Parts: sequence; structure tokens; C-alpha cells
Amino acid sequence: MSETVTLSLDEAARLAKAAFLTSGVSDAHAEALTATVMAGQADECHSHGLYRVLGCVRSVREGKVNPVAEPRVSTPAPAIVKVDADYGFSPLAFRTGLPHLVEKARGQGLAALAINHCFHFSALWPEVEALAAQGLAALALTPSHAWVAPAGGTKGVFGTNPIAFAWPRPGDFPFVFDFATSAAARGEIELHRRAGKPIPEGWAIDAEGQPTTDATAALAGAMLTFGGHKGSALSAMVELMAGPLIGDMTSLESMAFDAGVGAAPCHGELILAFDPARFLGAEKDAHVARAEALFDAILGQGARLPSQRRFAARQRTATAGVTIPRQLYADIQALLA
Amino acid sequence: MSETVTLSLDEAARLAKAAFLTSGVSDAHAEALTATVMAGQADECHSHGLYRVLGCVRSVREGKVNPVAEPRVSTPAPAIVKVDADYGFSPLAFRTGLPHLVEKARGQGLAALAINHCFHFSALWPEVEALAAQGLAALALTPSHAWVAPAGGTKGVFGTNPIAFAWPRPGDFPFVFDFATSAAARGEIELHRRAGKPIPEGWAIDAEGQPTTDATAALAGAMLTFGGHKGSALSAMVELMAGPLIGDMTSLESMAFDAGVGAAPCHGELILAFDPARFLGAEKDAHVARAEALFDAILGQGARLPSQRRFAARQRTATAGVTIPRQLYADIQALLA
Repeated sequence: MSETVTLSLDEAARLAKAAFLTSGVSDAHAEALTATVMAGQADECHSHGLYRVLGCVRSVREGKVNPVAEPRVSTPAPAIVKVDADYGFSPLAFRTGLPHLVEKARGQGLAALAINHCFHFSALWPEVEALAAQGLAALALTPSHAWVAPAGGTKGVFGTNPIAFAWPRPGDFPFVFDFATSAAARGEIELHRRAGKPIPEGWAIDAEGQPTTDATAALAGAMLTFGGHKGSALSAMVELMAGPLIGDMTSLESMAFDAGVGAAPCHGELILAFDPARFLGAEKDAHVARAEALFDAILGQGARLPSQRRFAARQRTATAGVTIPRQLYADIQALLA
Repeated sequence: MSETVTLSLDEAARLAKAAFLTSGVSDAHAEALTATVMAGQADECHSHGLYRVLGCVRSVREGKVNPVAEPRVSTPAPAIVKVDADYGFSPLAFRTGLPHLVEKARGQGLAALAINHCFHFSALWPEVEALAAQGLAALALTPSHAWVAPAGGTKGVFGTNPIAFAWPRPGDFPFVFDFATSAAARGEIELHRRAGKPIPEGWAIDAEGQPTTDATAALAGAMLTFGGHKGSALSAMVELMAGPLIGDMTSLESMAFDAGVGAAPCHGELILAFDPARFLGAEKDAHVARAEALFDAILGQGARLPSQRRFAARQRTATAGVTIPRQLYADIQALLA
């Protein structure tokens, strides 16, 4: 028997949605969650794909997540839209806020979407890509749980605090990046621990604050940011902008709120959108061509743009479907029983 | 004879302004330039202090900089203010745009200041700090010249592309960082070359794209970004947001525009401002306290906040004055002769 199962995108989406619905989430949440995990799976980001169905269902069953939360929109200022997710998952809150953010960015030139009180498990690139698809540049920030020490420190304060950015490109996939400001993902350290393998230097320190390559010691200590004091400074910016600025929890507060349950982190998210048409007016196309010249200068020397691998996978899976481990398929099927 | 000269802040500012005026810049430019170099000197950022007087005067004499440029303000959208610096220095353009940016951020919740066609030589922290002093969070980005290779590449495409951020703190200096997305400043490599010392690994590659610790080979090759592909992605974001988005040059274009003269880079700059009062309303103070708890968690474990050293210097020089090399003092005095 093959160790993998291949499903068409439609089959995979139907399976995911059915599994979400068994957890008791509303149809609107099941739709939004399915679109999010399918975006990850279609791009072969397996850690953000169908694998997440299991974690989402578990998070609901643990009782922390509001399965039928109805996001509430408010507009405290002309360039700000807030969506209170009411302790539901973030994808429906983003989907609810998106048209408001687009309208405000086009009206004001730039705008912010602040999502509050959401459980967050997804990558940020689906969100910034949704804005790029509307012709907008976008920047998204969110905290997580306080596993990461500040530069010069020994104890976790910051989350893995991802930063995602998208720039719309004429007739092509957007320019997109999405990375953690931690040196590595927490899950990668966990995988090394299970495999009994040392982690690379620079990922973590032990409980005494000493550099370590021992995964178990790292998990008991603290992770490090990428890029030394610069990554640490960026991580602090993510905390401030996607925490206090929008009236939501820092990674320290979010971890305390979880109280050891291990659910998806609950916190806020900040998404900024910029309309090149409002910045540039009639000269937009000429200046967008400057961006294309920049990309040409990168690609022309044999370097890659971020996300190229994802986009290649997306083109492939559109016709070939997605392939997942048979065990994962069985685990999701078991939710339906 | 002492190798240094100590001047009160007033004496130093008078000296700087007199030197700027000898180059033929307008009084308004001389005022703004003086405030900028004095901010650097007072914080003992010597490379952005009085030392820059010499470079600015040279840039004017080389004929690239418009010494009497009058910045022109336009407002293409409710949350965007543009200042066309008309090929003058950036500080007067920023000073001209600042009240408009503050007004728009307070009115819309967030706003952007796009400065175009400016010669830029200063750090970005004076600008984000000026916004923090008005109670706003701020983010500033600018390209430079194409000395820095993208991750996986071998040739310069990006500038040193700094990112600066400020968060206002009640009754204290703001939280501020300002760093290049290159692994090191170009001037640091130059200093190593002059001293005949090897540069650290990770700073640069040679003309064949191989890692090098030879400063001369590095200057003939390309610099690297900090933090590998993540720093490279951020550097691309700086290019896009402070170049094409605001209708100005990328670092490649700016270097071509300079045509080997070696003047201050001419390009654009993007500054974003966010009003916590508009994001948070009546709950502002409670959420600002969350930010203070974050800083306490960093400082409480013996780690530092960015810019602490600068702020300590600022407190010291306010009464003790600034101390500069006697040769620099003589070089500036010579401009007045």
C-alpha cells in the first residue's frame, strides 16, 4: 500500500471542510478554515496544510476557541478597520475585514486592518497575497507565544513573530515573503528532538542562557531571533504593532492566556495595505516597471525571489492534486466517523 | 595639545550652521542640516555627527545637490503627503512634511510621508523620534546605492537599506531602532581596508561571488544582507516601498544617477506614522501599559533596549557638550576661511 494519498483540490477541500464541521464550527468558519489550509496544501507548505485540520479540531474541542464566533467590524478612524474575532479562528475574521481594508486603502491611500481576539494558526502569506490580488502592497504582523529571548537576554519574551509582505506584479505571481523573526520555527526544534538530532548553532539557548545544540535543552530554554540584535529589534516591533497598538496581547500575555493547554495562540494581528494607484496616480505603470527591473536584476544573476517554490507547487497541484501521508488522511477521516 | 575639542551644543551648532552656509545652502537648509548633524553628535553617533558637515558641503560643491531647493508639498490622498525635495537635502523636506504627516496620522489613524528626489545622508532615527515625540509610532525606510547582493546572488542590487522604528513611551525616551539591512555599513568595510584588517565572515563576497574576509576584495565584490534570506527579503521590501511605491529610484537607479561622483545618495524615503489614540480610543493608556510590561520583561533579564547607549550619550552631552577630533574641528573651521 502506498504511504501517501493523492487527492484533487476539490476532494481535499471537501474532506477538510467535513472534518472542520464535525468539531462544531459554523459553516462560515469551516469555509474560511478550509480555504486557509487548502492554500497551504496547494503550495506544498505541508506544516500549514491539511495537517492543521487536526490541530484546529483539537483547539475547538479543548474549549478555548469559540466555534461559532461572528466577527464584528468597527471603524475607529478613516484608515483603520478593526475586526473583533470574538475568540474564534482568524481566517473568517480576515475574510470579514478584507473588503473594508481594500476600500479604505483605495480611499485613503493606505489603511490598517486590526484583528483582535483571534486564534491564529495559519501562515500570513495567504492574507498579504489576497491584498496583492487586489493590486495593493501589504504588510502583516502577528505575535505568538513568548518562546524567544531578546538579544542579550536569556528568557522568552517574544513570539516567533512573523512578518509577511506582498507586492503586486502585473501578470504574474506577486513578490511575497513570510518569515518568522525567530531563527527557526519551534516545530523544527521539536522535530530535531524527536529525531535525536542536534540543532544548528544560533537557534537557541539553554535554561542558563548558554548557547546549545541540544534540542531538549533548547525547548527548556529559549529560542533566539534571526539576525542577532536586528532580528530582535524587529521582533519587538511586531509585538508592539500587533499587540499594544491594536489593543491586544503580547506574546507573554498570550502564553499566559493559554495556561499550558497548547491551543493555537490567541492574540491580534495587524495588516497594512498600500494602494500604489493613490501614491502614484497616472505615473503608476512607469514606477511599477521599476519594481520589475529590480526583480529582473535579482533573477538575472541566478538568485531567486522568495516564494518561487510555493508558486511552482501551486501550478503543479492545480492539476496534479495534493499528496499527503496516508496516516494524515486516516487521521482526518477518523474525525468524520 | 589635546587631540580633541569639546564644544557646548550651542557652539557646535553655530559652527555647523556657519559651515553649511559657506556652501551656499539656504538658511532653511542650513538650519535643518544643523539640527540633523547635531542630533547625531549629541547622541555620540560620530559617523552621523559633525563629521557629516564635510560630506554635505562637498556634495553641494560637486553641483549635484540643489542648495536652495524649496520642498513642495502635495496630498494625493487623505492619508498620503508627498514632499518633492527638488534635489535638495532631505532634512528640510522632512521638516516641511512633518506637520502634515502628524495631522494626517491623527486624522486618519495612520498616514504616509513620501519624500522624493532628496539627497540623503542622515540616520533615520531623528525622523522616527520626531514622530514619537508627538505620540505617534513610526516606521521609516530608504534605499541607498546598489552595493548589496540579494541572497543567493553575487552582484549588488540592494542598498544598505535601513529600517527605523519608534514607539512613544510615557515619560521616557521612546523605544527606537535604526539599522541597515546590510550585514555591516559600507564605511566599516572601508575602515577595515584602511587598517589592513580582515572583515568578519558574512559581511561580503568577492567579485566571483565567493565569501571573503578581504576588505579590498569585498569592496570590489558585493556586501551581504544581515540574516541571510530573511534580511534579503526585508531589503527588497525597502526597495519597493521607498522606491517604486513612492515614485522614486531604486538603489540601482540611484547609483546610476550618481554616475561615480560619490555624492550622498539621491532617492526617496517613506515614513509611516500610526496614532495609538486613534487605534485605541479611551483604552489607550491600558494598552500602552502592555508595551511597558514588554520593555520591563526585556530589561528585567539584563538585556538592553535598542538606542539605550544613544540616550545615555544625549543626557551626558546636554551638559558636558560634544567632543570631536581636533582634526575634524580644524577641517570644519577651514570651510569658514
